[in-house]
Amino acid sequence: MKKLEVGILGATGMVGQRFMSLLEHHPWFEAVWLAASDRSAGKKYADACNWRLREAMPAAARDLMVHECKPGKAPQLIFSSLDSKVAGEVEKEFAQAGHVVVSNSSNHRMEPDVPLLIPEVNPDHLAMVREQRKQRGWKGMIVTNPNCTTVGLVMSLVPLERAFGLEKVLVTSMQAVSGAGYPGVPTLDIMGNVIPYISGEEEKVEREAHKLLGKLTDGHVAKGNFVVSAHCNRVFVEDGHTEAVSISLRSQASLEDLIEAWRKFRALPQERQLPTAPKHPIIVREERDRPQVKFDVNAEHGMAAVVGRVRTCPVLQFKYTTLSHNTIRGAAGAALLNAELMKSEGYLD
Amino acid sequence: MKKLEVGILGATGMVGQRFMSLLEHHPWFEAVWLAASDRSAGKKYADACNWRLREAMPAAARDLMVHECKPGKAPQLIFSSLDSKVAGEVEKEFAQAGHVVVSNSSNHRMEPDVPLLIPEVNPDHLAMVREQRKQRGWKGMIVTNPNCTTVGLVMSLVPLERAFGLEKVLVTSMQAVSGAGYPGVPTLDIMGNVIPYISGEEEKVEREAHKLLGKLTDGHVAKGNFVVSAHCNRVFVEDGHTEAVSISLRSQASLEDLIEAWRKFRALPQERQLPTAPKHPIIVREERDRPQVKFDVNAEHGMAAVVGRVRTCPVLQFKYTTLSHNTIRGAAGAALLNAELMKSEGYLD
Amino acid sequence: MKKLEVGILGATGMVGQRFMSLLEHHPWFEAVWLAASDRSAGKKYADACNWRLREAMPAAARDLMVHECKPGKAPQLIFSSLDSKVAGEVEKEFAQAGHVVVSNSSNHRMEPDVPLLIPEVNPDHLAMVREQRKQRGWKGMIVTNPNCTTVGLVMSLVPLERAFGLEKVLVTSMQAVSGAGYPGVPTLDIMGNVIPYISGEEEKVEREAHKLLGKLTDGHVAKGNFVVSAHCNRVFVEDGHTEAVSISLRSQASLEDLIEAWRKFRALPQERQLPTAPKHPIIVREERDRPQVKFDVNAEHGMAAVVGRVRTCPVLQFKYTTLSHNTIRGAAGAALLNAELMKSEGYLD
Amino acid sequence: MKKLEVGILGATGMVGQRFMSLLEHHPWFEAVWLAASDRSAGKKYADACNWRLREAMPAAARDLMVHECKPGKAPQLIFSSLDSKVAGEVEKEFAQAGHVVVSNSSNHRMEPDVPLLIPEVNPDHLAMVREQRKQRGWKGMIVTNPNCTTVGLVMSLVPLERAFGLEKVLVTSMQAVSGAGYPGVPTLDIMGNVIPYISGEEEKVEREAHKLLGKLTDGHVAKGNFVVSAHCNRVFVEDGHTEAVSISLRSQASLEDLIEAWRKFRALPQERQLPTAPKHPIIVREERDRPQVKFDVNAEHGMAAVVGRVRTCPVLQFKYTTLSHNTIRGAAGAALLNAELMKSEGYLD
Repeated sequence: MKKLEVGILGATGMVGQRFMSLLEHHPWFEAVWLAASDRSAGKKYADACNWRLREAMPAAARDLMVHECKPGKAPQLIFSSLDSKVAGEVEKEFAQAGHVVVSNSSNHRMEPDVPLLIPEVNPDHLAMVREQRKQRGWKGMIVTNPNCTTVGLVMSLVPLERAFGLEKVLVTSMQAVSGAGYPGVPTLDIMGNVIPYISGEEEKVEREAHKLLGKLTDGHVAKGNFVVSAHCNRVFVEDGHTEAVSISLRSQASLEDLIEAWRKFRALPQERQLPTAPKHPIIVREERDRPQVKFDVNAEHGMAAVVGRVRTCPVLQFKYTTLSHNTIRGAAGAALLNAELMKSEGYLD
Repeated sequence: MKKLEVGILGATGMVGQRFMSLLEHHPWFEAVWLAASDRSAGKKYADACNWRLREAMPAAARDLMVHECKPGKAPQLIFSSLDSKVAGEVEKEFAQAGHVVVSNSSNHRMEPDVPLLIPEVNPDHLAMVREQRKQRGWKGMIVTNPNCTTVGLVMSLVPLERAFGLEKVLVTSMQAVSGAGYPGVPTLDIMGNVIPYISGEEEKVEREAHKLLGKLTDGHVAKGNFVVSAHCNRVFVEDGHTEAVSISLRSQASLEDLIEAWRKFRALPQERQLPTAPKHPIIVREERDRPQVKFDVNAEHGMAAVVGRVRTCPVLQFKYTTLSHNTIRGAAGAALLNAELMKSEGYLD
Repeated sequence: MKKLEVGILGATGMVGQRFMSLLEHHPWFEAVWLAASDRSAGKKYADACNWRLREAMPAAARDLMVHECKPGKAPQLIFSSLDSKVAGEVEKEFAQAGHVVVSNSSNHRMEPDVPLLIPEVNPDHLAMVREQRKQRGWKGMIVTNPNCTTVGLVMSLVPLERAFGLEKVLVTSMQAVSGAGYPGVPTLDIMGNVIPYISGEEEKVEREAHKLLGKLTDGHVAKGNFVVSAHCNRVFVEDGHTEAVSISLRSQASLEDLIEAWRKFRALPQERQLPTAPKHPIIVREERDRPQVKFDVNAEHGMAAVVGRVRTCPVLQFKYTTLSHNTIRGAAGAALLNAELMKSEGYLD
Repeated sequence: MKKLEVGILGATGMVGQRFMSLLEHHPWFEAVWLAASDRSAGKKYADACNWRLREAMPAAARDLMVHECKPGKAPQLIFSSLDSKVAGEVEKEFAQAGHVVVSNSSNHRMEPDVPLLIPEVNPDHLAMVREQRKQRGWKGMIVTNPNCTTVGLVMSLVPLERAFGLEKVLVTSMQAVSGAGYPGVPTLDIMGNVIPYISGEEEKVEREAHKLLGKLTDGHVAKGNFVVSAHCNRVFVEDGHTEAVSISLRSQASLEDLIEAWRKFRALPQERQLPTAPKHPIIVREERDRPQVKFDVNAEHGMAAVVGRVRTCPVLQFKYTTLSHNTIRGAAGAALLNAELMKSEGYLD
């Protein structure tokens, strides 16, 4: 099968590099068109990109030319990991020109006609693009994935929401430095330190959780019927956001019920065996001191939410810890899985 | 004024070293008698102790002989930072022999006739020692300070409890490695990692908060009238426990009310100007990204709780971050301040 | 082909864990017999071992019983990563009982009848075991690999020694914490620090380099005809020893000559395609800031020496940096390759 | 005594912040005029500066206005820690306008009429400014201090050079991230890594050592009569450059001779008791594992070179480790001591 050619906006950044790496052996998609800031445009990828992943730059990527962020000769399917300073306008321009923009940027996530998707959580929200295209008069479209901290949290919540109803969620994140891109967090800021603040992050987690778990009716998403509060912190970790979560549910459940709900959870990406889908979207560890970044961040190739330390909470009802890979499940892998869902739904034909 | 001679049990450990350092220029107390495990007994302190603090070992300590942990020639006032494996029995033996044991160990904290003290929080609980001595037939006594994670939390809570009543507390800690002593946490366990579990820690925080904020009536402490839940995590920090806290109060309050309650908070140690008392027990930082270990852990010589990021919480009522030095305010400094309170109350005459 | 059954002494330690991991899919060998300290003996491996590698414990290993370190029912081929406190006697006991002991421990390395081997460097030294068995009256034998810091250095030196003769070597190492085993280096010792001392390490590097590059004549190894000096330091790195090397050669050479000598270097393990042999034993990086632990430590599955920054040295003649994986190429992988060499030479039939 | 008013070019950078901190309680100088890049000019220091030191910003500095880097109303004495991209021209402009520029920047260090000074090493080189002013027709002057890696090395060398003559020096540095300024080294680059390259650093060390230890004759400095080679590496340390040094001397010496030469070393700054001068410019540690950043970097308020691990070197003659604080002794403190020397020599009257 000939692979579908895809383009990447922001290809030289940290998430852009993850896109390149995840696409290297992708069975459906092939990165053939790269774009980045004007500073990089006109150079070969190997020259434009300060490659920061431990695995080597894909050989096929080295000689690809980096273009300006302009539609035109770009392929239909475009992944975007542009900086939010420019993503807003550029992505609209591409969508208007007929491209399917699958974006990791935060700019359009909360717009009422833009799907904010986790394929295991709310694949039906994809239908919002019909309204989007009609209202905006676009041939193309924009589809988004959530913030890196939201993804792991909401994945751990969705089986509980479905089985028992969700009432309250209080989450404290301990987030990796790669979430801030490159150069990102200066060493002098984070070595031996905790930074109890990440600009805009708490608001994103709280807003996005509502949209992801909200019900789509007549083309509109109603906010989820629960309250959520986030404390976001930066810690000295390379990849992997650890989140301490307390929750209250609407109906009776035991610790065992929670664990069972997580363990048996499968969704559309698993049923359709989408290439990037984890076999087990949620992995429950029973050791008393897991999940840990060191051992669990790459579970299911970085696409799982790893849950552990499930216990009762004296203030809310239950507490647990969840961990997910912030630049894979929380960024490039999330967008990739969105695109795979779209292809399997016929949006890319 | 001749200084009061004091002894230290567990003088070679991490908290023992902090005792030595804090006592070096203490105006009231002088460390003259040191004891540690049998492995160290009979050696000079400089030879027995693998000194790990950045500041140099006090010169006067170098030639002190390390004794076995037996009463006898020890001074009346004894600080204890013994490992909890042995502290239980040894401390009792000293108390029985007439010593005033001011302990940082967890063993006796929750016993109903043992004061668990923060001088700014519950100095009246010290009166429990009368019952203790009577019931146990001791000439001496045992007084304790809380766990390092509890101290900073409860200091931040007490002004709120007094002004508005406390209903619910949910805390997620990000704790320093020095809390685990020396050698403590192996580098291979924590580098680039978060460990979402510390043995026994969550239970201690939950139990001790109740005792500290509980009311003493007829020699007994009633549990505080609130619920508390803790998530405890180890992060890559040397000294300083950062805690993300959400709370509900019993009466109406604004963010400004909270800040004012913290800022104007003064207590007995401040009134009496005890030598180790911080001038400002609670410091409120208004920058959006503080408190931070790097900048705030040594505020008030490591004796303050530094609070920041005060904001409303969609799930409970308010949220904020508090930071305190775990081996000073959370251990050796806590015990020292307890002893100073006791002296000012006439317990050491 | 039925795999050869092998045993592992010290199976629960850091290097033991690497043995288990490297043997998981080994085409020739299968780990079936594990032994460790008395504390572990009698337990299943999964229960006895505090697994510290990022990759999961091999499934087949979980239920293996851990034995005492006694010969008897152990297989003929034994890998040893015992602590040097006990390795001396235990390894002798196994050799005497007829086992082929392929050891990573330092105890026997410098004995005149014990081969100290790097298969790419001095495979002919293996012949020393004939003398060893004769003199000691053993049915078995002991074969050793060098210290983790020595391996990378000597691999980088051997092509130069052969082509141009070696006169002087001055090396400064920046060594990973995993070299100290587990629990090994306390976090409080190394966070934000450099420790300019590793017990016994400099002596090992200096002595072992001479034996490895020495000529075997009449069953004896003459010291190499060069001088070598080592500065050994511990830095905050998980795996991978970086070494800054200055050298003088005996005959004329250009920087290009050095690079060519490294690039074209192949030896017996490569010719025979031994399973653990790197295709390119020495990789030369031409970027100005490589090799780096982050990007290069796993080159050739951790079995290569990665060389870079080749330039002239104003004091000696040339300088460069070399990096190798200390628990793979410098320990378990080294022993494994030694055993593969021995099998290909007929020592294990 | 009224303090001498001084200005600071580059006051908002890492070294600029050190200047502010070191000048806070300086007995001779008072920082009254600050300048930085256009982005900062016109703001108050507290607003313009992203303060990164652990100690708080001096209160008196908070409201100082930050100016453009133009002479005019600036005080006579100017400290410069400008980025080398702009320091060249700006410093010349100030010198031409009559200012005494005491610079930490690298731009003018190697010019034949510019003193490169360590007051303990070559205070006589200060006389070069006469030639400088005459030739350039300046009313002011430029005086420089060496690179942060050079200072500690040359301080450790000068007593040996004087007593025994210096023939060869081979140094491998393990340098702190603060040497790269702020934001400087990205966390993603250095966490768990060693970077074996720092742009221009090795050349600086080699060149500057020659100028510092060279003899001034007829207004010109002859290169020192020795060879020197540097390997420069970046490691995960906040402040403090550790250097592994091997040397050959010209006349007979024992290890004890070296230690004695270091211990008894005193120079002009000590004789004149300059305010920033360390009492003991070189501290010799006899423990087998010192100097260490953790314990020794702040010796003598960060103004000493701390030497240890003195032993014979099989390749050269001796080897040892030296450590110094790179932003104090290696930057702001170095410039401050230069200015104190100049004042005591009458250059600032």
